[in-house]
Amino acid sequence: MDEDKAMVIFQPSGRRGEVPKGITVIEASRLLGVDIEALCGEKKVCGKCVVRIEDGHFEKYGIQSSISHVSPWQEEEEKFINDEHREKGFRLGCVATVQDDILVFVPEESRAGKQVVSKAARDIYIEHNPAVKLYYVEVDEPTFQEPTGDFERVCRGLEREYGLSDLTIDIFALRQLPVALRDGKWAVTVSVWNDKEVIRVRPGKLDRTYGLAIDVGTTTVAAYFCDLTTMEVVDTVSMMNPQCKYGEDVMARITYHMTTPDGLKRMSDDIIEGVNELINKAVENTYPPKKKKKKKKGEDGPAEMVEVPVEGKTYLRLGIEDIEDITIGFNTAMHHIFLSLDPEYVGMAPFPPVLHHSLDIKARDLGIKINPSSYMFVLPIEAGFVGADNVGVLLAEEPYKHEENQLIIDIGTNGELVLGNRHKLISSSCATGPALEGAQIAFGMRAAPGAMERILIDPETKEVDYKVIGREAWRKYSDPKEMKAKGICGSGILDLLAELYRAGVIAKSGVFNKKALKEHPRFRKNPDTNQPEFVLAWAEESSIDKDIVVTQKDIRQIQLAKGALYAGCKLMVKRMGLDKVDTVKIAGAFGTHVDREKALIMGLFPDCEIEKIQGVGNAAGDGCRAALLNVKKRVEANWCSRNVEYIELTVESTFQQEFMEAMQLPHMTDKFPHLEGLVDEEILHQK
Amino acid sequence: MDEDKAMVIFQPSGRRGEVPKGITVIEASRLLGVDIEALCGEKKVCGKCVVRIEDGHFEKYGIQSSISHVSPWQEEEEKFINDEHREKGFRLGCVATVQDDILVFVPEESRAGKQVVSKAARDIYIEHNPAVKLYYVEVDEPTFQEPTGDFERVCRGLEREYGLSDLTIDIFALRQLPVALRDGKWAVTVSVWNDKEVIRVRPGKLDRTYGLAIDVGTTTVAAYFCDLTTMEVVDTVSMMNPQCKYGEDVMARITYHMTTPDGLKRMSDDIIEGVNELINKAVENTYPPKKKKKKKKGEDGPAEMVEVPVEGKTYLRLGIEDIEDITIGFNTAMHHIFLSLDPEYVGMAPFPPVLHHSLDIKARDLGIKINPSSYMFVLPIEAGFVGADNVGVLLAEEPYKHEENQLIIDIGTNGELVLGNRHKLISSSCATGPALEGAQIAFGMRAAPGAMERILIDPETKEVDYKVIGREAWRKYSDPKEMKAKGICGSGILDLLAELYRAGVIAKSGVFNKKALKEHPRFRKNPDTNQPEFVLAWAEESSIDKDIVVTQKDIRQIQLAKGALYAGCKLMVKRMGLDKVDTVKIAGAFGTHVDREKALIMGLFPDCEIEKIQGVGNAAGDGCRAALLNVKKRVEANWCSRNVEYIELTVESTFQQEFMEAMQLPHMTDKFPHLEGLVDEEILHQK
Repeated sequence: MDEDKAMVIFQPSGRRGEVPKGITVIEASRLLGVDIEALCGEKKVCGKCVVRIEDGHFEKYGIQSSISHVSPWQEEEEKFINDEHREKGFRLGCVATVQDDILVFVPEESRAGKQVVSKAARDIYIEHNPAVKLYYVEVDEPTFQEPTGDFERVCRGLEREYGLSDLTIDIFALRQLPVALRDGKWAVTVSVWNDKEVIRVRPGKLDRTYGLAIDVGTTTVAAYFCDLTTMEVVDTVSMMNPQCKYGEDVMARITYHMTTPDGLKRMSDDIIEGVNELINKAVENTYPPKKKKKKKKGEDGPAEMVEVPVEGKTYLRLGIEDIEDITIGFNTAMHHIFLSLDPEYVGMAPFPPVLHHSLDIKARDLGIKINPSSYMFVLPIEAGFVGADNVGVLLAEEPYKHEENQLIIDIGTNGELVLGNRHKLISSSCATGPALEGAQIAFGMRAAPGAMERILIDPETKEVDYKVIGREAWRKYSDPKEMKAKGICGSGILDLLAELYRAGVIAKSGVFNKKALKEHPRFRKNPDTNQPEFVLAWAEESSIDKDIVVTQKDIRQIQLAKGALYAGCKLMVKRMGLDKVDTVKIAGAFGTHVDREKALIMGLFPDCEIEKIQGVGNAAGDGCRAALLNVKKRVEANWCSRNVEYIELTVESTFQQEFMEAMQLPHMTDKFPHLEGLVDEEILHQK
Repeated sequence: MDEDKAMVIFQPSGRRGEVPKGITVIEASRLLGVDIEALCGEKKVCGKCVVRIEDGHFEKYGIQSSISHVSPWQEEEEKFINDEHREKGFRLGCVATVQDDILVFVPEESRAGKQVVSKAARDIYIEHNPAVKLYYVEVDEPTFQEPTGDFERVCRGLEREYGLSDLTIDIFALRQLPVALRDGKWAVTVSVWNDKEVIRVRPGKLDRTYGLAIDVGTTTVAAYFCDLTTMEVVDTVSMMNPQCKYGEDVMARITYHMTTPDGLKRMSDDIIEGVNELINKAVENTYPPKKKKKKKKGEDGPAEMVEVPVEGKTYLRLGIEDIEDITIGFNTAMHHIFLSLDPEYVGMAPFPPVLHHSLDIKARDLGIKINPSSYMFVLPIEAGFVGADNVGVLLAEEPYKHEENQLIIDIGTNGELVLGNRHKLISSSCATGPALEGAQIAFGMRAAPGAMERILIDPETKEVDYKVIGREAWRKYSDPKEMKAKGICGSGILDLLAELYRAGVIAKSGVFNKKALKEHPRFRKNPDTNQPEFVLAWAEESSIDKDIVVTQKDIRQIQLAKGALYAGCKLMVKRMGLDKVDTVKIAGAFGTHVDREKALIMGLFPDCEIEKIQGVGNAAGDGCRAALLNVKKRVEANWCSRNVEYIELTVESTFQQEFMEAMQLPHMTDKFPHLEGLVDEEILHQK
């Protein structure tokens, strides 16, 4: 490497590249197309551009990163970064200059382009029967004649009033009991878990308690913050999975564990810290907006739930101890890493998990900071590559209650498939990779402002039109300088492939149609990689001062993803002895944004009537929420995890052939004659 | 106070006094009659005299103690005290000199006079049915056809082989599972708690597991270290309760909590650290004697249980993780403090405890370091002043299974009484204070070498003869210079009172018989306190270079104790509508060593046939052991705690009168004519 240059990798985006030594981290971010918040224009006064310089050897990137690889600490940083954070490697991006290779983590709050998250939870029917319920009880004061202990006194009241018997109490709740009883003048509200264990005691009469349903994806962590009494979704909070820096997919993280002595601990600590941040975020959002203030680390929020009237509206001030239940789902590898279970064997044939069954774990045993006596319900998992997230999808969609055959597809970094009906369900996974979500694509990005989400290519001129998130207008109706495109997000990916094909830019095999593109200004060879690429947006239209391109490798990634998905679906349909499926449900953000017609045409999954294709949103999260609000769903979850038959597709003899075929772009189908122009026979025969 | 003097208090003995500033801690200990080990003769080379200078304000003694109140750290100390201990205030007693008031804790290992502990556990019948059982299971390796997860695979085996179903697993045990299964080539030994929860997984076939039955007294903590498979008592370990520095009795400790902001935390932390030390001691003792080495703090012992042959004998090398179960009993205040439950209300009428019921608590939740997934079973308590220790006594003695009426007396710092049979049981407590155990007596001490345990006084000459622990011969058959008496222990106390009375040194009311003692060299007024005292051993016979005396205040303390005990027993017998009891059982060290005849004569408890008086040793500890080895005893314990009726004696109208009467020394009884000389009528009428 050039001695005057250093490798800089930004996380969680994964953007990387060499930059001249001596420039600031902010300058490097701009060179590499990463947006870091800098309200003050790098005058070192706003403190918005806080980043963390990671410490360690990152084999995947072949670099050693260290806080000593940036310039020394400056006095200006003290105002924004406390000692604890300073020790963890936090710096101001506008102050620290690059001296050697570094891996830079950009915290959520320092990212300029906030992710667009669909806030509203889907309206699925859930019976109200939470694991944590509140009971109010009044008891007599002890006397010499009746000096029975506090707990037995309360139990007697709970049995008399509510028929609860044989209750136990967690030691942390027991410590609250004597003071609460006396503060409440012998009247308390107790939180009881599963009608078995007392997990909180508060003085007086209270009627609110809260819970979180958390869906931990390989890339994103999202949570529904619910009122357990009213079932209302108070808020939806999300963040990037902080483990992204160890690798973008599950295999990379398993490898990180196997090659790094404390790799598992690091990854586990990071996601636990992440979940705690998410909890704090949920709680902080309940603060009245006027009084909202950034909480310092270590502060546990106010001791009591207080109703605060602000501008005529009443706000609840909650503390983390007001969260009394959590349900959480993951794919199997994320599940194991979160729980510090050795994930090695999940990554090795025949991929047995350490356990399938759900777990009730005291949150404190994992370092999760909520009400200290509370449990987390960890959803059960189906198999090595079909995890608790898929159980969540099943809980939300309930295919086991219907006669029609449903194919449910959850496209995340790994594709998970379920097929069947009330009589039989089979599941499988396919290594789609994250390409369909916009990752591992040269200019792929999250669904954030500036992301291209719709693309059109003129078959004649091969000129490109597009629409970015954050602006209603298409490019051709806008001043290019105002479009500020930054990359392509998941929902734009399938559009892109279909349009490239329809416009004759690529052939059925996926290769660029060199003949048609000859001397076209948008088609060129990248001078560094010598790979062909096609320009989607010129530097002047972009917010990162670079041409946004799609490369031959990108197209190959998308083809691999769609091929894996199609082949997986097809083999499952075959295995079930079906000709076609009745319904196709697509979970995840991809399902919400995808153009169903184009997905069908491009051969993402087997034939199905177009009106029978549904996006079901964050079904995994909805399933977690169902388990949070209805304890019977937890039993159902375990039933699902053991009664869905897992099929390992890669060992099927025809898998390889199906996969190769499915990678090709499809022939015209007679079903959709209006899309006749989609195949350019001329291109098909160019080779 | 004299400016050249400082107050020095030694713990756990409680010895205190002013000493000249500038002398070493060892020199101060000698002045105050505390023996600290000093093998090298204070040459600073043996490191045996390590003591800890406590930090804080000790209201009880009215002093502020601080490590800065002794001379600065010396280089010689580094060899014996590591940095961690140095920070905690540890110093060498022969190096540190007294500069100001200090409270000095003398650790068990630095005490010259080791306590005499009855090692052998009593031979009581216990059915073998421990809560933690081992199961060996072999399973098939996972395949593509059968990729079931590790835990479900093992559960299937356990159900097939042993009929165990619906098992859960602790997260810490779950983390051991994947590696143990592969290390053991798909054969593992699992430890299952209550046939419900897997708490440990080890590769291969193993047949041993261990547990501790711990009895936490106000003054002493003792534990039986048991093999759960063979029921064998491997060892008995004990130590002083490290909370002694906060106060000698439970009321003093409750007061410490109420007057010191972090008092409860301090006391709780200390006893938990103490229990951890006891656990380490038990485990270390299993090391082969030749290889025995002091473990450094933080080392968790060897990872595996290894059998080590030394000189033809096989030793087990255990680690703390080999302790898989603990049962623990306390009096109510110690119970609350150990669990960090507010003990305030236990000390305030009507004395309701926070709870009665037993608790199964993960040891890790309390900071107790054993097998990380293991539980502690905390015995249930009966009432505010009749704790889990009394439940232990009941479990060992089982009065509820017999027709005869038993009176069971447990004399500790607080006296606990149970009376009844299979039809009815009542319990109570009486504030005996610790005098009968030798505490709060000017020269009282533990049952250690040098303690006077038998005393005889010649009625004619009023000359004293005695026997000390550690020498078979009586004083008059020994060279006085070789007797080295140090104080009076519990078993000597009752002898002392009876002999003082029999010899006419004191009258029925307990006051010294001034007429008979006129000009006797052993009778004098203490020049400092102006109180009369009687010399039992001259300075030349003592190891502390001081006359050992009994004061008028001492006699009053003993009378108060015996009065409280007798009045309590009498009122209970009355309450049960009995004339007399069939059996009297005396638990604790006092019961083992007391002269039954003298106890009866001196009126310690109501009339009973002398052969029906039994010492039952450490019955509380035996009860804990029964609960450790037989899980059914745990159910029985909860039954006991709720079915023994607690009687608050102090509210009985006749209590005060009974108590006053019982404080008097008794008239001659016709039952024991051979003890005719015990009452000197002349003395009785001196007033």
